[in-house]
Amino acid sequence: MINEQYKRMLEGKSVIRQLSEFATERGKEIGYENVFDYSLGNPSVPVPGEFTEAMIKLLRTKDSMELHGYSPSLGIASVKEKIADSLNQRFGMNYTGNHIFPTTGAAGAVAHAVRCVTEPGDEVLTIAPYFPEYNMYVNMTGARLKVVPADTESFQIQFGRLEEMLTEKVAALLINTPNNPSGAVYSEDTLKKLAELLMRKQKEYGHDIFLISDEPYREIVFDGKKAPYVSRFYDNTLSCYSYSKSLSLPGERIGYVAANPACRDAELISAICGQISRGIGHNCPPSIIQLAVAEIPDVTADMSVYERNMNILYNELTALGFECVRPGGTFYIFPKALEEDAAAFCRKALAYDLVLVPSDSFGVPGFFRMAYCIDTEKVERSLEALRKFVKGY
Amino acid sequence: MINEQYKRMLEGKSVIRQLSEFATERGKEIGYENVFDYSLGNPSVPVPGEFTEAMIKLLRTKDSMELHGYSPSLGIASVKEKIADSLNQRFGMNYTGNHIFPTTGAAGAVAHAVRCVTEPGDEVLTIAPYFPEYNMYVNMTGARLKVVPADTESFQIQFGRLEEMLTEKVAALLINTPNNPSGAVYSEDTLKKLAELLMRKQKEYGHDIFLISDEPYREIVFDGKKAPYVSRFYDNTLSCYSYSKSLSLPGERIGYVAANPACRDAELISAICGQISRGIGHNCPPSIIQLAVAEIPDVTADMSVYERNMNILYNELTALGFECVRPGGTFYIFPKALEEDAAAFCRKALAYDLVLVPSDSFGVPGFFRMAYCIDTEKVERSLEALRKFVKGY
Repeated sequence: MINEQYKRMLEGKSVIRQLSEFATERGKEIGYENVFDYSLGNPSVPVPGEFTEAMIKLLRTKDSMELHGYSPSLGIASVKEKIADSLNQRFGMNYTGNHIFPTTGAAGAVAHAVRCVTEPGDEVLTIAPYFPEYNMYVNMTGARLKVVPADTESFQIQFGRLEEMLTEKVAALLINTPNNPSGAVYSEDTLKKLAELLMRKQKEYGHDIFLISDEPYREIVFDGKKAPYVSRFYDNTLSCYSYSKSLSLPGERIGYVAANPACRDAELISAICGQISRGIGHNCPPSIIQLAVAEIPDVTADMSVYERNMNILYNELTALGFECVRPGGTFYIFPKALEEDAAAFCRKALAYDLVLVPSDSFGVPGFFRMAYCIDTEKVERSLEALRKFVKGY
Repeated sequence: MINEQYKRMLEGKSVIRQLSEFATERGKEIGYENVFDYSLGNPSVPVPGEFTEAMIKLLRTKDSMELHGYSPSLGIASVKEKIADSLNQRFGMNYTGNHIFPTTGAAGAVAHAVRCVTEPGDEVLTIAPYFPEYNMYVNMTGARLKVVPADTESFQIQFGRLEEMLTEKVAALLINTPNNPSGAVYSEDTLKKLAELLMRKQKEYGHDIFLISDEPYREIVFDGKKAPYVSRFYDNTLSCYSYSKSLSLPGERIGYVAANPACRDAELISAICGQISRGIGHNCPPSIIQLAVAEIPDVTADMSVYERNMNILYNELTALGFECVRPGGTFYIFPKALEEDAAAFCRKALAYDLVLVPSDSFGVPGFFRMAYCIDTEKVERSLEALRKFVKGY
């Protein structure tokens, strides 16, 4: 018999997926170039040539058995070392390869990290707005995800609410900066306050509270700034990374968990991740993909288009009267809808071939998300539709 | 705090892994070419050139966003169709793409299949000798693996014992043919009897009993024969495949679950697998690896070396007086040890630089496994050590 729990999961269809399907269907009628599809976070710039060349070089020159043979279940040692070195140089950390566990993207990294530091029944907190798949990554482990309400003024953190919810049952806090969907980047000040609170609560409760930092947008930050590196602020941090956005290869699903060397049982984390993989029959990411990204640890795709698109949209949206926090990074913007019911607002936008995502599934009512990882030319063409839509209000 | 269950799993170190580490260490002393390492099932023949060329062609010619962008969470449609077509042609099945779910190798396929058709508390049977990691794939779902004792005369199935253990609590039977570690291939007669028994028990209990068929060695069969295709014999079959052995790329971890179109909820299986992946943050195998194997669905590496090695070893072992079932496929042979304690037997072999794996973790006492996926020249050199070792008894 088919497992009932998974059957039930099937029924809850993702809103984003439904909207994306609408966009595809509508595209068949009027041409996809005329659908202003802001629904999906699929990078729109090509993979850097360095990745393609690294792959071809591996295929052409490396011994087939070495390249394609079984790789160690904790990841390829040379890959882990190169990732550690790059993080150390860029963020002043002191990782060794033993602190790095390669995963299938940030999704795999977050799901492993949660399993690693929780027991069934524990609570994991996250901060709204948040990526809805966190519900799966946390609740399927037997732990429970609880959501701290958003600070809608700045999309930083409401520390009062966080402290209230940070009870003894909380084993981990899962954050995402730069943030999907708000585009907010947590400031140094926010991260310092957060670390102070977590350290105080650890002492009070006499147990560890892990900070799981989901950071696939770490390299997409605007105005020439850099996102503060979360793990520098708090020892018990597990950084979850994906190359999906920075190298424009979400389909290749490659990332890692990096355990802060000062965290509890730091060198055990990787070994525990290996056991988690064993239990799901998953093992490490493909050997060739691990080796290829490690060849170019500091390369990113040309992501300037995202900042250009952000500025165009931010200026237009504010000119049209939208309340909107200016994104510090990512390729999302998260304005307040023009009516309380964000789903109704986004349904009406479809009449103008504007595909916007209502904020409810991100844990905040009354906002909407635009994923502007599309051509600038299309962003510009969408402004007229946006103006017409707003005029209707 | 680190999860206690995974911590405990860490303590149970794999015997095979320990032996392989011994072989590596010993290799540093006397040269690895002088260690007769029969411990690891790592294919020893190169990946076929067709795979390398398919990868390079994809990298050189396919649009970067199409190649590396997000792929559908149930697998790439064209890939699924090509796999279905190839299975239909070779085995007379009638799969569509909707019956195929790409996974990270057979490990991922088996772990998904088990989750798909069991509820926590259900029993899953397997037949000794069996791959020890089945304990993980089954027990980590909340179901329980129970082992039907081996038929050590032929390594087919002891139907009397199987029927006794096939109680109402059993949701699935997990089999592996061609078999690791015995090298036995289940005959048509065995599979027919098995199907009859399962159908009778389904009727008796009024619920489905799924057959999960783990078949990574399907293409490695000797004497010009073909392994009977398990799913042809029983409707409720989920076939779990890996390209690891047939294409010599275990590190790339690519395979699939194929649900028999006549099985219960056949088209739902793939969707349920998608939900299982969501829960572990794993999603589909990398886009480029999916696309590359689908370009060459009927290609295999040149695996003739395995049959050559098998014949050399089988002849020598039987000449030396070992009781041994002649393998019909795989790259394993599973003779009876010369004393009851297989672990003691294998420890003594190490003095002759022969690395053999004791049978206990495969669920059978008193045998040992040799993985002869090594150069024929080395197999030949190992015979002298084997003779000396046996003389000691």
